[in-house]
Amino acid sequence: MLVIKLGGGAGIDYEAFLDDLARLDEPAVFVHGGNAELDRVSKRLGIEPRHVTSSSGQSSRFTDRETLDAMLMVYCGKINKTLVEGLQRRGVNAVGLSALDGRIAVGRRKPAIRVIEDGRPRMLRGDYAGSIEAIDARLLTLLLEAGYLPVLTPPALSHEGEAINVDGDKLATEVAVALGADQLLVFSNTPGLLADVKDESSLVAAISLANMAEAGAMAQGRMKKKVQAAQDAVERGVGRVVFADARIERPIARALEGDGTTISA
Amino acid sequence: MLVIKLGGGAGIDYEAFLDDLARLDEPAVFVHGGNAELDRVSKRLGIEPRHVTSSSGQSSRFTDRETLDAMLMVYCGKINKTLVEGLQRRGVNAVGLSALDGRIAVGRRKPAIRVIEDGRPRMLRGDYAGSIEAIDARLLTLLLEAGYLPVLTPPALSHEGEAINVDGDKLATEVAVALGADQLLVFSNTPGLLADVKDESSLVAAISLANMAEAGAMAQGRMKKKVQAAQDAVERGVGRVVFADARIERPIARALEGDGTTISA
Repeated sequence: MLVIKLGGGAGIDYEAFLDDLARLDEPAVFVHGGNAELDRVSKRLGIEPRHVTSSSGQSSRFTDRETLDAMLMVYCGKINKTLVEGLQRRGVNAVGLSALDGRIAVGRRKPAIRVIEDGRPRMLRGDYAGSIEAIDARLLTLLLEAGYLPVLTPPALSHEGEAINVDGDKLATEVAVALGADQLLVFSNTPGLLADVKDESSLVAAISLANMAEAGAMAQGRMKKKVQAAQDAVERGVGRVVFADARIERPIARALEGDGTTISA
Repeated sequence: MLVIKLGGGAGIDYEAFLDDLARLDEPAVFVHGGNAELDRVSKRLGIEPRHVTSSSGQSSRFTDRETLDAMLMVYCGKINKTLVEGLQRRGVNAVGLSALDGRIAVGRRKPAIRVIEDGRPRMLRGDYAGSIEAIDARLLTLLLEAGYLPVLTPPALSHEGEAINVDGDKLATEVAVALGADQLLVFSNTPGLLADVKDESSLVAAISLANMAEAGAMAQGRMKKKVQAAQDAVERGVGRVVFADARIERPIARALEGDGTTISA
């Protein structure tokens, strides 16, 4: 069992990715994001994307209800269904879902977050974001056993029954752990973890749990979260995690052959 | 087994509708549209909705690829997932799907349509619209048997694997026939079929197949399509079809109690 995560960054070759996914001959869950497209559509809708810095220094998108609605449109609507359409065109019987559907992922909403704005701490209310606390794998298992390819995207569901923005890598990790996946492949618009973020030839080929601290120190920006999520996945039983490039031909086959950064016990 | 269709027109009380749906104690498939919201969002995105009149006199939305993308955003994203969120909040384990997912509805795309513009006939190309030719009820049955409530919306899938805009009432009809539903309840922002479209008290309470021609002659605009679809459903084995009002409290219970227009053999 594979869990395959595709980020929503610029430069991704979706056609090559779907071609490769259609050639895969083992059961898989396909998880995707949609950040870059959400920014584009928000701008067209006249919603200014708002990124905030938490008191711990992490940057994230502030998801007010209007932004959440835009997220439903872009992640669950345009991107999810365009991927399903592309897979169906290639003969793959895909089923597109959000983590709301069938309560796949339930988590805790943090309605107020402590942020730093203009150097000062303040509380920001009305955020529809949270962290995943439980996975119900029943729907995914039902679909996999019937031969469907689940295509899954945020948001998740809060305990109070609200849609909440959750991190896509975290969603993929939690699903991989819940399903006992052999491998979790995490694709984005970089070749993997780079020792020097400006030099794509400085790829780190392998990390073990023993040298995670070193890898964590190397990682910049969003890659920090990815490294944490990968460590978490391996510690909780996923065979290996691979960070791999989605801008190339045969991206999935190449990741399975050993390209990218492999994280294992 | 019930199939419940909710239109996307103005004035619908979604909260009352979901409250009532959550009280239902028999298996159901919930089908919805999203026309009014699609017009609103299209306008915000700077896409001018284009309605065309076919050579046979029927008015329909012209769905170029940009409009289809907006439709994916509104129908499959915002509306479908907001309904799923509302049902989950009420304790109903809903699963939101388009008719692309699991190839629920496959049909024929008509890439060119003959329209009348400024009184003259012309061929218009690039339409992503079509008619449903086959239902694969396997995914819906799988979900119903596992206790989920499927929430289904257009588009459907063409034989060539493209998303195609299909009529929501037609989708509900085809699903009701394929599942052998006892009843198909069709909700919109009118009390049912009116003898005089301007007088809501002129409700026609019952139509049988014997007086369908009369009912067809009474129906105006979109109601013509609804009457045709209802006749089709009853002729193909659905126990009865009810046209009912979605602007009121307990809309589903009242339709089951006999409010609205009932069409039966």
